Amino acid sequence: MNRKITFYHAPNSRSGGTFALLEELSADYELHLVNLKAGESRRPDYRAINPMGKVPAIRHGEVLITEQPAIFMYLADLYAEAGLAPAIGDPLRGAYLRWLVFYGSCFEPALVDRSLNREPAPPSKSPYGSWEDVINTLQLQLAKGPYMLGERFTAADVLWGGALHWATLFKLVPETPQISAYIDRVITRPAMQRVAARDADYLAQQAA
Amino acid sequence: MNRKITFYHAPNSRSGGTFALLEELSADYELHLVNLKAGESRRPDYRAINPMGKVPAIRHGEVLITEQPAIFMYLADLYAEAGLAPAIGDPLRGAYLRWLVFYGSCFEPALVDRSLNREPAPPSKSPYGSWEDVINTLQLQLAKGPYMLGERFTAADVLWGGALHWATLFKLVPETPQISAYIDRVITRPAMQRVAARDADYLAQQAA
Ligand SMILES: N[C@@H](CCC(=O)N[C@@H](CS)C(=O)NCC(=O)O)C(=O)O
Ligand SMILES: N[C@@H](CCC(=O)N[C@@H](CS)C(=O)NCC(=O)O)C(=O)O
Repeated sequence: MNRKITFYHAPNSRSGGTFALLEELSADYELHLVNLKAGESRRPDYRAINPMGKVPAIRHGEVLITEQPAIFMYLADLYAEAGLAPAIGDPLRGAYLRWLVFYGSCFEPALVDRSLNREPAPPSKSPYGSWEDVINTLQLQLAKGPYMLGERFTAADVLWGGALHWATLFKLVPETPQISAYIDRVITRPAMQRVAARDADYLAQQAA
Repeated sequence: MNRKITFYHAPNSRSGGTFALLEELSADYELHLVNLKAGESRRPDYRAINPMGKVPAIRHGEVLITEQPAIFMYLADLYAEAGLAPAIGDPLRGAYLRWLVFYGSCFEPALVDRSLNREPAPPSKSPYGSWEDVINTLQLQLAKGPYMLGERFTAADVLWGGALHWATLFKLVPETPQISAYIDRVITRPAMQRVAARDADYLAQQAA
C-alpha cells in the first residue's frame, strides 16, 4: 500500500511533534501549511478535512487521523522499519500506549488548568486527579531513563520531549535536572533541529 | 505468552468500560475490587500499582497499563481473535485509534468543563475547542453507523456506548434519536448486561 501521508501543519503549534515524527521516520509526506492567525483552521474548507478545526491532522489515502497520540501510534506502526514503535507482543507495547495516551488524557488537561490558574475538577471527576499526581507519575517513569521507556528511543519520546520543552519554556513544568536532561536528549536530535529550522521559515513566510 | 490480565476495578466508575471489554473479548482475567468510597484508590498499596491512584488499571505480567484508550487498544490487540480491533494495515485502523484517543483527549475534558459549568479554555489553548465542535464531530462520525466505524463493531463502541449512556443519564449529552439508538445498540449486548448485573452486586458488597 502507498504510504504517502498528507500532513496539515501550523508552525509553532501542537502539530510540531507530528512534523518531527515524520522526519524521524523518514516518512513520505506532503506538508500543507495552515495559517492559524489568519483563521484558516476554522474555515469551511479546512473543517471539511478536520471537523474539529485543529492541527495536527493527517490523511493517508481516504483516511483522516487526528489527535496527536493516535497520529503517533498510526505513523510509527506504518513506518515500523524505523523502530520507533514497540510492536504488538513486545513487552514495551503496553507502556508505549499508556504514555502516548497519558499525554492527551492527563498531561494536557492538567497543563491547561495550570496555565489558566484553574482548580482541577474534584478528584472523582477529574481525569488526572491533581497536578502533583501527574508530575510525580511522569518523574517516576522518566527515572527509568534515558528515554521514557528505558533504553529504547520511541515515538513517545518525540511527543514528550517536545511537549516538555515547550512546557518548561512557559514555566509550567519545573526544570528539574532529570527533566532538563531528558528534553536535551530529545531536542538535540538532527530531525528535531531540522524541524525547528523549517518552522522558523514557515513562520516568517506566514507573517510576510 | 500467558494472556492472563489482572484488572483493578471499582463498580459504577470509569473502569466499567474495561470490565465490559474484558467480557466482550472472553479474556482470561482476575478482578480486584477497589473501594473508592473507602479511599482505597489513594492508599500506598494501590499507589504502588498505579501511582495516579485511579481505576481502571490492568497488569499483564510485569506491565502496568492505565488510561482507558490505552487499555482498550492493548486488550483488543492481545485478544485479536475476538475481532474487536481492526489490525495494523486494515483501512479502519486509523479511525479506530482516532476515536479511542478522542474520547480521552477531547470528549472527557469537554464533559468535565460542561459538568462544572466552566468556560472552555481559549480556543488556541483548549485541546478540544468548543463543546459544539466535539458534539458535531461525534455526530458526523455516528452518522456512518450503525457503529462508530460503520458496519463493524469494535472496542471503540464498548468505550463510547458506555460513556454516552452515562453522559446522557446525567443530561450532559443530548439524547438525539441517533445517539439514543447507538447507545441502545451497545448496552443491550449480553456482555454489557452481564457486567451491569455484576457491578450491582459489587456495589452492594462494598456498601455492606
Ligand atoms: N487534541 C488535539 C489538540 C490540537 C490543537 O488544539 N491544536 C491547536 C494548535 S496548538 C489548533 O489547531 N488550534 C487552532 C484553533 O483552535 O483554531 C491534539 O492533541 O491533537
Ligand atoms: N484518565 C483516566 C481517569 C480514570 C479516573 O478518573 N478514574 C476514577 C474513577 S471514575 C478514579 O479512579 N477515581 C478515584 C480517585 O480519584 O480517588 C482514564 O480515563 O482511565
